[in-house]
Amino acid sequence: MNNLTKFENKHIPILNEFLSKYLESLDANDLLKQSMEYSVEAGGKRIRPILILLVLDALKKAITAEDYQVASSLELLHTYSLIHDDLPEMDNDDLRRGKPTNHKKFGQAMAVLAGDGLLTTAFEWLAKVNISAEKRVKLISDLAFAAGPQGMVNGQVGDILGEKTKYNLAQLQNVHRGKTGALIRYACIAGATLADANDEQSELLCKYGENFGLAFQIYDDLLDVIGNEKTLGKKVHKDKSENKNTYPGLLGVDGTKEKLNDILNQTYQLLNEMKSKGIKVDLLTELLDYFKIKEQ
Amino acid sequence: MNNLTKFENKHIPILNEFLSKYLESLDANDLLKQSMEYSVEAGGKRIRPILILLVLDALKKAITAEDYQVASSLELLHTYSLIHDDLPEMDNDDLRRGKPTNHKKFGQAMAVLAGDGLLTTAFEWLAKVNISAEKRVKLISDLAFAAGPQGMVNGQVGDILGEKTKYNLAQLQNVHRGKTGALIRYACIAGATLADANDEQSELLCKYGENFGLAFQIYDDLLDVIGNEKTLGKKVHKDKSENKNTYPGLLGVDGTKEKLNDILNQTYQLLNEMKSKGIKVDLLTELLDYFKIKEQ
Repeated sequence: MNNLTKFENKHIPILNEFLSKYLESLDANDLLKQSMEYSVEAGGKRIRPILILLVLDALKKAITAEDYQVASSLELLHTYSLIHDDLPEMDNDDLRRGKPTNHKKFGQAMAVLAGDGLLTTAFEWLAKVNISAEKRVKLISDLAFAAGPQGMVNGQVGDILGEKTKYNLAQLQNVHRGKTGALIRYACIAGATLADANDEQSELLCKYGENFGLAFQIYDDLLDVIGNEKTLGKKVHKDKSENKNTYPGLLGVDGTKEKLNDILNQTYQLLNEMKSKGIKVDLLTELLDYFKIKEQ
Repeated sequence: MNNLTKFENKHIPILNEFLSKYLESLDANDLLKQSMEYSVEAGGKRIRPILILLVLDALKKAITAEDYQVASSLELLHTYSLIHDDLPEMDNDDLRRGKPTNHKKFGQAMAVLAGDGLLTTAFEWLAKVNISAEKRVKLISDLAFAAGPQGMVNGQVGDILGEKTKYNLAQLQNVHRGKTGALIRYACIAGATLADANDEQSELLCKYGENFGLAFQIYDDLLDVIGNEKTLGKKVHKDKSENKNTYPGLLGVDGTKEKLNDILNQTYQLLNEMKSKGIKVDLLTELLDYFKIKEQ
C-alpha cells in the first residue's frame, strides 16, 4: 500500500463520520435528510477534501477537527454540484457511482432541494468553524468565487451550451477551468489558508491545483472513451452520445494522452520547485501519479 | 405619499443599481448573466432588503454602502429561491411578476444554474463586504441557517410534500416558518447585527420578523383566493388547483382574516414594547399596515 492510500485510509473515514454525524443531526424533514445523505454517502473518493488535507500535510500542519470541517464542507458543495448536474434538464444521468442518481431515487423536486440545501450548508459550516473570523471569510469568499457564476456554475453553462457548439481547445479548457478546475484549485488555496502558507507557497500550491484540475478532466474524458462501465460505476461513451466537447473529440485519443503527459511533466517540474521552497511533496506526487495512463 | 413609500422610493433605486452594476460586471457567460439579471431585475418589491434597511432606520443607524450590499445579497438569495420554486418539477409556474418565469424564458437547465449562481453569490457578497470579519461570519451563518435545510429549503420540501398530505394548523405554520418566515426573520436579525443592537432589541426585532413573516404568508394565501390576476401579475386560485395547504383551505376565508387580524394586533402591541425600548417604530408600523385587508 502506498503512502497516499494510507493517508486516504486514515482520513476518509474521519471525513465520512463528520459528514454523516452532521447530516443525522439536522432538524429537517426526513425525506430531505435521506436525500442529502444518500448522495453525500454514495461513496465518492473524496478527492477534493483529501486534497485540502494533503496540502496541510505538504505544509507540515497537524490536521485538526477544524480542518476536517473545512474539508467536509467542500465535499458538501461538490455533492450538490453532482446532484444538480445529473438532473434531467442537465446531463440527465440515471447512474452515479454505480447507484441511481438522486432524482431517480427521490424525484426531481427533492433532488433540486437537496442540492440547494447542501450548497447552503457548505457555507454555513465555513461560517461556523472554530478558526479566526478572518480565515473564515477568506475561505467563504474563495469558495463562493470558485463555485459561483464566475467559476463552476459558469463551467456548467459552457458544458451544456457546448452540446450545440463545437469548441476549440482554448474554449474547452475554459469550460473545464470552471466545471472541474475551480473547486480543485480552491482545495489547494483553502489548504494554504488553513496552514498559513506564505505568498510564494500559496502561489505554487494554487498552480499545482490548476494543473491537477486540468489533468483530472483530461483523464476523465479519456476514461469515458477507453474505460469500462463496470469499473467506473457509470456509463461510458456517454460524452460522444451527448455531443459533449471533450479532449479526445478534439485531439483524438493519442493526442489526448500526449496532452495529459505534457501536463503531468510540467507538474512534476512544479513539484520540484515546491520542494525547493520547503513544501513536502511526496503525497502530492503520488496523487498526480494516479493520472498516469495504464494501458488497458 | 406615506413615509414608508418615501423610504422605499429613496432606497429601492439604490438597491437596484447596486444589483445591476454587479451583475453586469460578472465575468461569465452572457446567457447566464442575462438569466440571472432577468430574474433579479424582474421588479419585485424588494421587501426583504427593505426590511433590513427599515431595521437600521428603526435603530437610528445611517445607511451605508455596506448596508446596501448586505441588503442586496438577501435579494439575490430570495431571487434564487423564486427561480427554483417556479421550476416544472417544483411549482411549475409560467408567470412571475407578470412576466414569463426564468425557465420559460431561458430553459430549465439555465434556470437551475442561474439559481445556483445567485445563491452562491449571496454568500460571496457577505464574505466580501467591508465590515468586521466577525459581523460577516455572523451574517453568513444566520443567512445560511435561514435559507438552508433547517429553514427555507425545509419549508419548500414541506410545501411540495403537502400537495399529497393535508396539514393541520401547526404543520402548516411550520412549513411557512421555513418557506417564507425564515428569510424575513433573517432580515430583521441582519439589520440588528449591522446596527449593533443590544440583546433585548435584537430579540424584539426578531419577534417582529417572525410575526411579519406569518402575516405575509397568510395575506399571500388570502390574495390567492380573493385577489385578482391582473393586479397581482400572477395566477390566482392556483393553490387550490394544486392542492396546496393554505390558511383559507384550513380556516376558511373569514377564519383566515380573523387569524391575520390577531397576528397584526399582537404585532402592534409588540411595536409598542419596541418603542418603549428606544426603537423607532413608525415605518415598521406602516409596513405592517400593508397587510390590513382592504375589502375588494
